[in-house]
Amino acid sequence: MRRTLPLLILLAAPALGSDAIEAAREYKTHNGPRILRDFAKMLALPNVASDHANIRRNAGMIRAALEKRGVRSELLTLPDASPIVYGMLARPGAKRTLGVYLHYDGQPVDPAKWTNSPWKAALYTRAIESGGKPRAFPKPSEAIDLEWRIYARSAGDDKAPLAAILTTLDALHAANIAPTSNLIFFFEGEEEAGSTHLRDFLEKIREKIDPVDAWLICDGPVHQSRRPQLVFGVRGVTGLQVTVYGATRPLHSGHYGNWAPNPALMLARLLASMKDEHGRVLVDGFYDSVAPLSTVERTALRNLPNIDDALRREMGLAQSEADNAPYAERLLLPSLNIRGLETARVGSRTRNVIPSVATAALGMRLVKGNHPQAMQELVEAHIRRQGYLIVREDPPLDTRLRHAHIAKVIRESGYRAARTSMDLPIVRRVIAATERAADGPIVLLPSLGGSLPLYLFTDSLGKPAVIVPIANHDDNQHAADENLRVANLWYGIDLMASLFTMPADSAP
Amino acid sequence: MRRTLPLLILLAAPALGSDAIEAAREYKTHNGPRILRDFAKMLALPNVASDHANIRRNAGMIRAALEKRGVRSELLTLPDASPIVYGMLARPGAKRTLGVYLHYDGQPVDPAKWTNSPWKAALYTRAIESGGKPRAFPKPSEAIDLEWRIYARSAGDDKAPLAAILTTLDALHAANIAPTSNLIFFFEGEEEAGSTHLRDFLEKIREKIDPVDAWLICDGPVHQSRRPQLVFGVRGVTGLQVTVYGATRPLHSGHYGNWAPNPALMLARLLASMKDEHGRVLVDGFYDSVAPLSTVERTALRNLPNIDDALRREMGLAQSEADNAPYAERLLLPSLNIRGLETARVGSRTRNVIPSVATAALGMRLVKGNHPQAMQELVEAHIRRQGYLIVREDPPLDTRLRHAHIAKVIRESGYRAARTSMDLPIVRRVIAATERAADGPIVLLPSLGGSLPLYLFTDSLGKPAVIVPIANHDDNQHAADENLRVANLWYGIDLMASLFTMPADSAP
Repeated sequence: MRRTLPLLILLAAPALGSDAIEAAREYKTHNGPRILRDFAKMLALPNVASDHANIRRNAGMIRAALEKRGVRSELLTLPDASPIVYGMLARPGAKRTLGVYLHYDGQPVDPAKWTNSPWKAALYTRAIESGGKPRAFPKPSEAIDLEWRIYARSAGDDKAPLAAILTTLDALHAANIAPTSNLIFFFEGEEEAGSTHLRDFLEKIREKIDPVDAWLICDGPVHQSRRPQLVFGVRGVTGLQVTVYGATRPLHSGHYGNWAPNPALMLARLLASMKDEHGRVLVDGFYDSVAPLSTVERTALRNLPNIDDALRREMGLAQSEADNAPYAERLLLPSLNIRGLETARVGSRTRNVIPSVATAALGMRLVKGNHPQAMQELVEAHIRRQGYLIVREDPPLDTRLRHAHIAKVIRESGYRAARTSMDLPIVRRVIAATERAADGPIVLLPSLGGSLPLYLFTDSLGKPAVIVPIANHDDNQHAADENLRVANLWYGIDLMASLFTMPADSAP
Repeated sequence: MRRTLPLLILLAAPALGSDAIEAAREYKTHNGPRILRDFAKMLALPNVASDHANIRRNAGMIRAALEKRGVRSELLTLPDASPIVYGMLARPGAKRTLGVYLHYDGQPVDPAKWTNSPWKAALYTRAIESGGKPRAFPKPSEAIDLEWRIYARSAGDDKAPLAAILTTLDALHAANIAPTSNLIFFFEGEEEAGSTHLRDFLEKIREKIDPVDAWLICDGPVHQSRRPQLVFGVRGVTGLQVTVYGATRPLHSGHYGNWAPNPALMLARLLASMKDEHGRVLVDGFYDSVAPLSTVERTALRNLPNIDDALRREMGLAQSEADNAPYAERLLLPSLNIRGLETARVGSRTRNVIPSVATAALGMRLVKGNHPQAMQELVEAHIRRQGYLIVREDPPLDTRLRHAHIAKVIRESGYRAARTSMDLPIVRRVIAATERAADGPIVLLPSLGGSLPLYLFTDSLGKPAVIVPIANHDDNQHAADENLRVANLWYGIDLMASLFTMPADSAP
């Protein structure tokens, strides 16, 4: 079946989001089985970033799919990088340009752990762990059950929005509805490998993407309650490795216990000085650079579903930090976390020694306003205030003889947090469009706890960026038996239809 | 050459120690080469405790050597134990009985690390690490250089006193001098394997050894300054393994950092609460049971050679605990030492997690007055006062949900310290006899830092026990190229002569 000509989209009439959602629903009603089969075909192409040949096949397939739908597309390349699939759908006279990000690569797979091949989509009546049974893909006229799940690598993370976008373009065309914004598509092929060239790609096409008024980052899952959500930020990340020193060699704990300083105790005292029992970091200035929350963000926080009790129960925690302070609020503060401690041995491998060195791996998650190096400097200043000389390599004997407290601090790399204001007019449009697609209130999350290099969009490019998730939270992202719940794909199609046709900012 | 008949010793006249030392020196002058060759023969018999056949050969050889010198001897046995070589040299009319302990087993060997075979004694002109050269054992009339070293396993630890004792008995016989005390010899064959049957052996022959007025524990090295020393005690030892708990699984540090409690920080805070920056243990009552020092012990401490600066320099320490408090004083206090810390990973193996558990291996060295279980209870009470529930196994989910702070504490076994008073008349005799053999002042050390089950003699048997070392401090005890400096063997012979002939307590 031959589809959309570019001309048709360009000539189609703009429509309010609700018309477009209606069109998307109408389209799904008549084309459900084909949507699922097309998605299955897309999932059959292996897409691990290190598999360069297949990554190029994915990029080519996606480019062709965009071109077929009237999107002027090309592959952007850099040496040793997966190509970016770049596309532009111009709407003459549009006052606004939306950037649409997703990634078409997936996590590496361990096929032995999968129920079926990760590269052959399998349809189940519901989640396998809930007793779902395999079933054939539906015949053309067969009804779709929204609790069905499609199993394959990247079904949720992150080919789901790709399927939604392509279907939405088909649905809008079928209803003769045109987007209300210019659309720029930027599809990455190595997100799961660390996005190592993302900065360079964005720099390379800076002029092309400069018209973008807001980026929609199509990735990640919706809320654990299954309610649709939008996410406005991520935390930044960095770390420090801290080593403190006792004697030049491990000592006999009998001969020298109570005489030779113990670096494990020194480290314990140092770490204990960094955070109090209420979860407050005691490093001077640690919270000073935190950007304050807006009224809208505070309201959003108050309206979040309370998952704290359930989380604590699941994790066996009698109490969470700061006297059970709300989870979402805690993610809006920088964290100082001990990721590991090591000195000598414990358990059956214990020896009667005073260790010679003790090391802690410290991690920091950063929020808007925090600069990674500045935060590392605050922690180092704290260590100095505890009486330590800070060095960058193991200290020689004469340094040890002059300083009773020496800490080797190795700084890890890292990057800033990102947070987009919910108050911006274009962001309010995105929220409203998502609420229309969701048929009700949605979850507005000021920030994820985890880290992504979202600052490349918000700070380096200087544009608002909103994370627009589609996948179910229980999609086994990054693990075996990754899947997408059909209801979530269906929601994603409505969501894209609504976002692509949201009214101009001057409209009511 | 046929030697001593029992009858001759029994008939010999008692003599003051100085006559006996003269006799020992005279004997060495004429028999030096033979003493060294006899010692070499004794060292050629492998003596690792697990090598049962050779251990029995060692015991048989030692028993025969004692019998030949008029000591009524036998082998004491227990299932799976190395035999004790027990001997009794009765002196009719003696008012005093001395017990003489040594061990004839040696540490396991790694022959690849040895310059020569551990089981073939080699004579060197001085220490190998100081440029010593191998040389032939001397011919009968050749002069002995006291800086020569004899290399073999157990040359220092602990066949050196055995060679000294046998030679002393020969020297006294040759000079027709009889000991002034009854002598009971108790030679252990599994000290390096943990003395696992020592308690049972002492219990088994309790009546036989009941007449002992004081035990001479012939083991260990003299002072680092090469000055002869006597040691009056050892520290006891025990330990605890402490594990604290966070969530039931390691958590993503982004999603949950700043919300989920971190057991590594909890452990750091707990450990930091146990000891202050001046080296003082903050566990309530930790120092309460410490037996006070006597005036004599205080004087002995003041007279100790100061090795602290040299030790700090060698170990690269700018400062030792308690603001450089004297080493020997610190050994007279119980210690609380972190022997190991472990939670998640550091360095290149660091992952971005909040660990699920964190474990510390704590060690305690105990001094006279401390009871191992009582000290463990004090530390546990401290942990409880920090708000922890103490458990003995990993806590189930419902316990975790009820208690924010849970510590699993596993108690290790252990034993008490021992310290013999320097004020006892018999101990003063031992000090005086040693000073005579040393031709000058000796080092009187109230306690070693290390631990031995000396309490079996002092507390279980209720007798004074003095450690009487012979070997050089640089004898590579427990390591490759173990050796004995000939000067130390020569001193040991004088020392045994002096101790075996010290005046009765009523004498001036």
